[in-house]
Amino acid sequence: MAIGNGDAKEPSGIVTLLTDFGTVDAFVGVMKGVILGINPEARLVDLTHEIPAHDVEAAAFVLQMAYPYFPHGTVHLVVVDPGVGSRRRAIAVQAGAHLFVAPDNGVLSWVLARESRWEAVLIERQDLFLPEVSATFHGRDVFAPVAGHLSRGLALRELGPAIPELVRTKVPQPSVEGTCARGEIVYFDRFGNAVTNLPRHLVPPHADLTIAVGSFRIQGLVSCYDEGTEGMPMALWGSAGYLELALRRDNLRARLGLVKGQKVYLQW
Amino acid sequence: MAIGNGDAKEPSGIVTLLTDFGTVDAFVGVMKGVILGINPEARLVDLTHEIPAHDVEAAAFVLQMAYPYFPHGTVHLVVVDPGVGSRRRAIAVQAGAHLFVAPDNGVLSWVLARESRWEAVLIERQDLFLPEVSATFHGRDVFAPVAGHLSRGLALRELGPAIPELVRTKVPQPSVEGTCARGEIVYFDRFGNAVTNLPRHLVPPHADLTIAVGSFRIQGLVSCYDEGTEGMPMALWGSAGYLELALRRDNLRARLGLVKGQKVYLQW
Amino acid sequence: MAIGNGDAKEPSGIVTLLTDFGTVDAFVGVMKGVILGINPEARLVDLTHEIPAHDVEAAAFVLQMAYPYFPHGTVHLVVVDPGVGSRRRAIAVQAGAHLFVAPDNGVLSWVLARESRWEAVLIERQDLFLPEVSATFHGRDVFAPVAGHLSRGLALRELGPAIPELVRTKVPQPSVEGTCARGEIVYFDRFGNAVTNLPRHLVPPHADLTIAVGSFRIQGLVSCYDEGTEGMPMALWGSAGYLELALRRDNLRARLGLVKGQKVYLQW
Repeated sequence: MAIGNGDAKEPSGIVTLLTDFGTVDAFVGVMKGVILGINPEARLVDLTHEIPAHDVEAAAFVLQMAYPYFPHGTVHLVVVDPGVGSRRRAIAVQAGAHLFVAPDNGVLSWVLARESRWEAVLIERQDLFLPEVSATFHGRDVFAPVAGHLSRGLALRELGPAIPELVRTKVPQPSVEGTCARGEIVYFDRFGNAVTNLPRHLVPPHADLTIAVGSFRIQGLVSCYDEGTEGMPMALWGSAGYLELALRRDNLRARLGLVKGQKVYLQW
Repeated sequence: MAIGNGDAKEPSGIVTLLTDFGTVDAFVGVMKGVILGINPEARLVDLTHEIPAHDVEAAAFVLQMAYPYFPHGTVHLVVVDPGVGSRRRAIAVQAGAHLFVAPDNGVLSWVLARESRWEAVLIERQDLFLPEVSATFHGRDVFAPVAGHLSRGLALRELGPAIPELVRTKVPQPSVEGTCARGEIVYFDRFGNAVTNLPRHLVPPHADLTIAVGSFRIQGLVSCYDEGTEGMPMALWGSAGYLELALRRDNLRARLGLVKGQKVYLQW
Repeated sequence: MAIGNGDAKEPSGIVTLLTDFGTVDAFVGVMKGVILGINPEARLVDLTHEIPAHDVEAAAFVLQMAYPYFPHGTVHLVVVDPGVGSRRRAIAVQAGAHLFVAPDNGVLSWVLARESRWEAVLIERQDLFLPEVSATFHGRDVFAPVAGHLSRGLALRELGPAIPELVRTKVPQPSVEGTCARGEIVYFDRFGNAVTNLPRHLVPPHADLTIAVGSFRIQGLVSCYDEGTEGMPMALWGSAGYLELALRRDNLRARLGLVKGQKVYLQW
C-alpha cells in the first residue's frame, strides 16, 4: 500500500533511520548530525533502533512493515551491519518509489519480495564519505553521508555501478493446500502479539477459520483486540495485513511460550 | 501556565506524540510517515512512548504535565487505546489553545480538569483516513491523518459533529480540612521521585510543613533535590507545581516500597 | 575532527539534547516544546537521554564523541544536573565552532580538553527564562530557553559575564614509557565493547601490538569486528579513534566482567 505522492525521482526530504544501535549511546545522534551537515533541510524519522544486535532478519521484517507509509522519494537508511568493515558491499537501492541505503547483507530481502521493480548500485563514491572512514562505524562514515546526498536529490547512478543481484535472506512463504495453509510466526511486537506470514488474501472473505499453533486451537477470528476473551488466545487480521495472534490486554508470547519460526496452521 | 503565542486557530505546525507503543517496533515511525505525507512541514515531538501498555491514567497525567509548555496551536496526538477497533469513539478536542486527537477513553480527563473552555467533536471524516482502516492500528489509519490535517489548519468542526461530553476517568482531588490536607501519589518519574496531587497553592507561603506517607514523617521542605540528606526522604515543590517526595541521588519508590494511590498527609 | 561548515557565529539552527532524563517521562518532550516556542525553526536531535542518573562523567565522554559530527554553530544542550537548584552555576560556552549550554559541574571537561579555544559565560539573563523557574527542572526553565535563543543567533555575551574557569572533572590521560602505554577503560557501548582512552596516534603505524587487560592478553589488532575469532577477545581502533576491546558478535563487558576505570596496557 503506497501512501505518498510523487515518485522517487523527487526526494521527499525525509530520511528514516533503522538500526540496532539502541539509544543508550549517541551513535544515532551522530548519524543525524552528519546527515544534517549535508542536507540541512532533511527531516529525520526514527523507525526503531532496538533491533536485536546483528539481527538482520528482524530489521528486514520491520522495514517492510514501515516503509510503505512514507511519502514517495523517502530515503530509508538501514544500519544493521554485523559485517561492518569486512568485504560486504555497501548498496543503495531504488525499490518502487522508495530509496534504501544499507549494507548488502539481506536486510532488504522483504522489501525486494514486495517490489517487482527495483535497481541497485554499489556505493563507491568515496568523495561523498566522511574524510576518515573508520573500520567500525560505516553508519556514520559511509551510509549517513550517502543518505544525506540522496535526500537532496543526488541520482542513484551517481553513487556507483549498477549491480544485478543482492544478498537475500530467506523470506518464509506460507504454503497452501486446498483449504489449509501453513505459515509461521515471523515477528513479535512489543505487546507480545505474534505476527505471522499468513496474508489476508489467502482466505476467502467471511470463511470460518480454525487456527492451530502449538497445542492451542483458536476457533474463528475477532476483529479487534478488545473483542477477545480474557485469558483465551485470539486471532485477527493485524495492521500489517497478516494473521496475528494475541491475548486480550496480556502478553501472548510470554504466556504461551511461543517462538519465532513456530508453525501456524489455518483451516477454512 | 501557557507559554506559547497565538491561539489554536493558527496552527503551530507542531504535532506531539504520546503512546504506549514503545520504541522497539516501528509503530511510532509509521505514524510520523503518515503525518509527514499529509503535512510535510509538520515538526514532530515525542512526549513519550513508554506509557505502560493500556494505562490510560498514566497517559492522562503525563499529557497534562507536558502540553502547556508547547506553543499555542500545537496538536497533541495521544494513542493509548486498549479499545481500538471496538465502539469507543475517536475524538478531536480544542482545550484552551491546544488541540488534542485521541480515543474517547478518558485520556484527556486531566487536561479537561485544567481547561475551563473546551469543545469536542467526533471524528467522522472517513475521507481523511488512510484508504484501508485496520481494526487494530487506528493510530496510523485514523488518528495520525487527522492530526496531520489539523496541523495544517483544518478546522475542528470539519471533522464531525460536536459532542457535549466525553468519557472521564477519576482525577483524584486533594481534600483540605483546616490546616491539614490529604492527597495521594499520582505518578512516579524515572528517578523514582513520587509526584502527588497536592498543589503548592493549598499551603500558605512560608508555612512550616509536616508530611506523612506510610510510616514515614518528613519535617519541612527542601528547595531542591541537592539539599536533601542522603538516606532521608525529602519533600519539595516539584517542577509540575505539586508536592514531590524524593531521596537524594537515590530511588525513593524502590527504597520505601511506595505505590501509586498511596495517601500523603500534609499539615501546617 | 570538525565536519561542518561555517563557524559558531552563524547558528546552524540545530539543537542537540543530552540528558539523564530517560524517555519514560515527558521531560525531554517538554524541553523541546520550550525550544520550539522560542525558535520555531530549530531542528532538534537527541544524542541520548539514557546517561545513568547523575553520571556527569559518562555524559562528558558521550558528548565529546558526538559533537564534532554536527555542523558548526550547533547548540548542544546538556542536562545531567544532580545539583539542580543548588548554587552550581549555569553556563554557556563556545568551544571551537560549537556552543554548549549546561550546568557548571564538569560535564564539559572532555570537550574543553579537546578544544584549545573556548570562552564561557555565566547565564544570568533571567528575562530569557520561563516566567516561573522551578527549583528542580532548570532543563525546562533555564537551559532550554537559553538554547532556543542561542540557536536563533543570540550572542553568547548577551547571556551574562565572562567567566575564566569552569568546574573540571578528571579526564584520564594515558601514560607512555618507551614502547609501553597504560590507559584505562572509559566507556562501554551498548554492544558491551570497551572504549579506552588510548588514542591511535600513540602508536607507530604498522607496529606489532600486545594488549593486556585483567588476566587477558591480546596479540595484534583486527581491523573490524567481523575479523575477530568467536569467543576470543579482540582489539581494534574504534570509531572514536581510541583502542577498543570487543568480542565477535558477543558482549565483552558481560563475558569478561570488565569495569570502567580498569587498566589497559599496550606494548609495541
